[in-house]
This record gives sequence, C-alpha cells and structure tokens, in this order.
Amino acid sequence: MANVRILEIKKSIFENNDLEAERLRADLKAQNTFLINLMSSPGSGKTSSVLRIIERLKGKYRIGVMEADIDSRVDAEAVARTGVPAIQIHTGGMCHLDAGMTRQGLESPEMRGLGLIILENVGNLVCPAEFDTGACKNMMILSVPEGDDKPLKYPLMFSVADLLLINKIDVLEFFDFDIGAVRERAEKLRPGITVIDVSAKQGIGFGCVAAWIEQEIEAWKRG
Amino acid sequence: MANVRILEIKKSIFENNDLEAERLRADLKAQNTFLINLMSSPGSGKTSSVLRIIERLKGKYRIGVMEADIDSRVDAEAVARTGVPAIQIHTGGMCHLDAGMTRQGLESPEMRGLGLIILENVGNLVCPAEFDTGACKNMMILSVPEGDDKPLKYPLMFSVADLLLINKIDVLEFFDFDIGAVRERAEKLRPGITVIDVSAKQGIGFGCVAAWIEQEIEAWKRG
Repeated sequence: MANVRILEIKKSIFENNDLEAERLRADLKAQNTFLINLMSSPGSGKTSSVLRIIERLKGKYRIGVMEADIDSRVDAEAVARTGVPAIQIHTGGMCHLDAGMTRQGLESPEMRGLGLIILENVGNLVCPAEFDTGACKNMMILSVPEGDDKPLKYPLMFSVADLLLINKIDVLEFFDFDIGAVRERAEKLRPGITVIDVSAKQGIGFGCVAAWIEQEIEAWKRG
Repeated sequence: MANVRILEIKKSIFENNDLEAERLRADLKAQNTFLINLMSSPGSGKTSSVLRIIERLKGKYRIGVMEADIDSRVDAEAVARTGVPAIQIHTGGMCHLDAGMTRQGLESPEMRGLGLIILENVGNLVCPAEFDTGACKNMMILSVPEGDDKPLKYPLMFSVADLLLINKIDVLEFFDFDIGAVRERAEKLRPGITVIDVSAKQGIGFGCVAAWIEQEIEAWKRG
C-alpha cells in the first residue's frame, strides 16, 4: 500500500470565496504553479484520467495531485504508485472544495515547488461548480454511461468548465449517447469550451488532452 | 411534449429537519401514502428505473412521481408520458431536498390521494444522504460504470439506503466491477440492506424490485 498523507481539512473562514480564489491564483502565478481543478460525478473516471495525464506529462513538468474525497484514500494511493507526489484531502463530509480549502491542501509539503498540480475535486456535479477553488483552469468529465442529457440538468457545471472530457467512449456503442448533442449543449453553456473524446481505460485521446494542458500553461506563463 | 407542472421550491424554514421529517412521515401514514426517496449520482438510471417500477406497479397502486432537478423538465415529461401524475421540482441550485422541500412537492394537487409516491432526489451521491426527506424508505442506485469503489468513497449514502439497485448489469462484462465486493461493502455500511441487480434499459430485475416495494408497503400498513 502506498504511503500517502491524509489531510483533514477544515471549513474555510473566508467570507468572500471569490476574493480568496483570486488571491490564490495570484500566489500560484508568483510561485509558477499551474493548478487544474478536475470535477465530475462519482465514477466518471477522474482518477484514471489523472493517471493518463501523468503518463503523458511527467517527463515535462513536476506534477503533483491532490485527491479530495469524503472518505477513503484509494485515489491518492493509485496516484502515488506512479511516483508522483499525491495527498488525500478529506473534506469531513463537505461536498465541495473552496479556495481556502484548496490552499490548505497546497500548503502540504508534498505540493511545494511543483509546476503542475491537479486537484481532483469531490465527485459531485452540483456543488463544486458553485465554488471557485482558485485554480487556473477547470476541467470536467462527463462519461458516456451517464447520458447525454447532463448539460441540460447540470448547466452550471458545464458553464464553468474550460475543458470537457467525454470519457468511456470505448463503450459508446452500448449506450444511447449523442456526442454531437453534448458538444452543442456544452458550447451553448460555455462558448469556446474545448471538448475531447477520451477513454481513460484504453488511453485514447490523452495526447490531445496533454497538448491542451501544455498550451494553457504556455499561455498562462506569457499572460 | 407532455405538460407537467414545474414547482420552484424554496429553502425550508425549519431549523430541525429530523423533527420535520418525522412529522411528514406521520402525515403520510395518516393519509395512507407510501413515499420512497430515490437517490444516486447523475446518470445512474433513476428515471429509467422509475419507469420500470411504474410498469410493474401501476395496476396495483395509484402512483405519482416527483422529479427533482436543478434545471430542465425532461424527467417529469418522461414519467408523464406513462399516464402517471408527475411534477418537476426545481431546487433553485440546491443540491438536495430536505423534509420541508419534500412537503412543498407533496402539497401539489397532482400528488393528492395517491398510494405510492416516488421522489427522485437531485442527482448527487453526497448531499441528499445528509437530509432526511421524510420518506418511508430510501432507495439508491449504483450503476456498474461508476465503479465498485463507491461504497468506500461515499459511505454515508450507502448507510442510509434500505434498497440498493446495482443498475446497468447488461454492460457488466465491459467494466471491471466486482458485484460481490459491492454487496459486501454495502452490507457492512447498512446491515440488512437489500441489494438487487437490475438493468433498467432491458427491464431485468424489476419484478424483484416491485416485490420488495409491495412487501415494504404491506409491512408499513401493518406497522
């Protein structure tokens, strides 16, 4: 069993989360750490996508991962087995992370001096969308078995996503899922959103995901 | 397009939700209405399971359905097409229903004088588990593509469920999903929980689900 730090985080004391998120983004910029906030329903494939991204980018960036969950540490252990620093954040029952909670994670010694940190938010398509974590970009996953109606039902999540991965495309033929309709609905909710079809299980599409991340990091460094 | 009432519900004013939930259960008993609260992640198959239950039980009970969602009314419309009274509850961004909100739905004229009402809670594996809706029984769905680790990650939800449906078993062979492990983990979290394997898409297992509901209604009438 990989040995990972489990961080029990506290509810934030900041009244104004948006302000705290802007502060965190400025601090991240100053220390040259690009933070991606990854959101989805439970079981959409967040951790397996993170593993695929690590596979592609660990030669290029010093990567770290913060895994948030109500309970358990299976995700952080899976990441730690790749050799990348990982911590498990326990939210004490809370259904999302805000900027103050994200900062508590970033202050963990394992997360110091890294170029790219991926925050895997609590599996939830509702609450995490309402709280800016202070990340530089938001990535979300919708997996094929969840259904193509999700942008209609959870519009806020799609409206805050910069990158949408449509995961589990390897089982597309077994489900009634209209990829074109999802792309169209996502584009309406977030004009300019990037949508990439992937299979984290089979490793399909992650060259494209890695290229998107690299581009965003380059643009952010110039910005 | 089926014509369904959309109810915009308000945040409850009750301080003590547990007390309000007990009150609601007593009122339901007095009016002979059995209320089931159905919870799962987005896309696990709540609405298609509800349709299968209606198919099996509409000859036996006067059934009604309350569909809760952040937005959209596609679920209530799908139910209304079966001829069963259905309303759509919009939570105004809230990630769960509590007993006061459930009562607002039950006061809708379509829900009067029914023997069995199914409340489809907001798609979310975290927050709905924390709030007693006042329902007589809690049913939850975990679908195969979500993964067999969900009881480890979302223990509270499993610990409040009376019935667990393992949905999408028609695609079991395409996923690494250990049904035995899920049954064992669920039993640990909720001793005596009933677990039924189903495919809402193919209609598999719903005879068993209907029998469970009938038994529970009979026991509740005697109790």
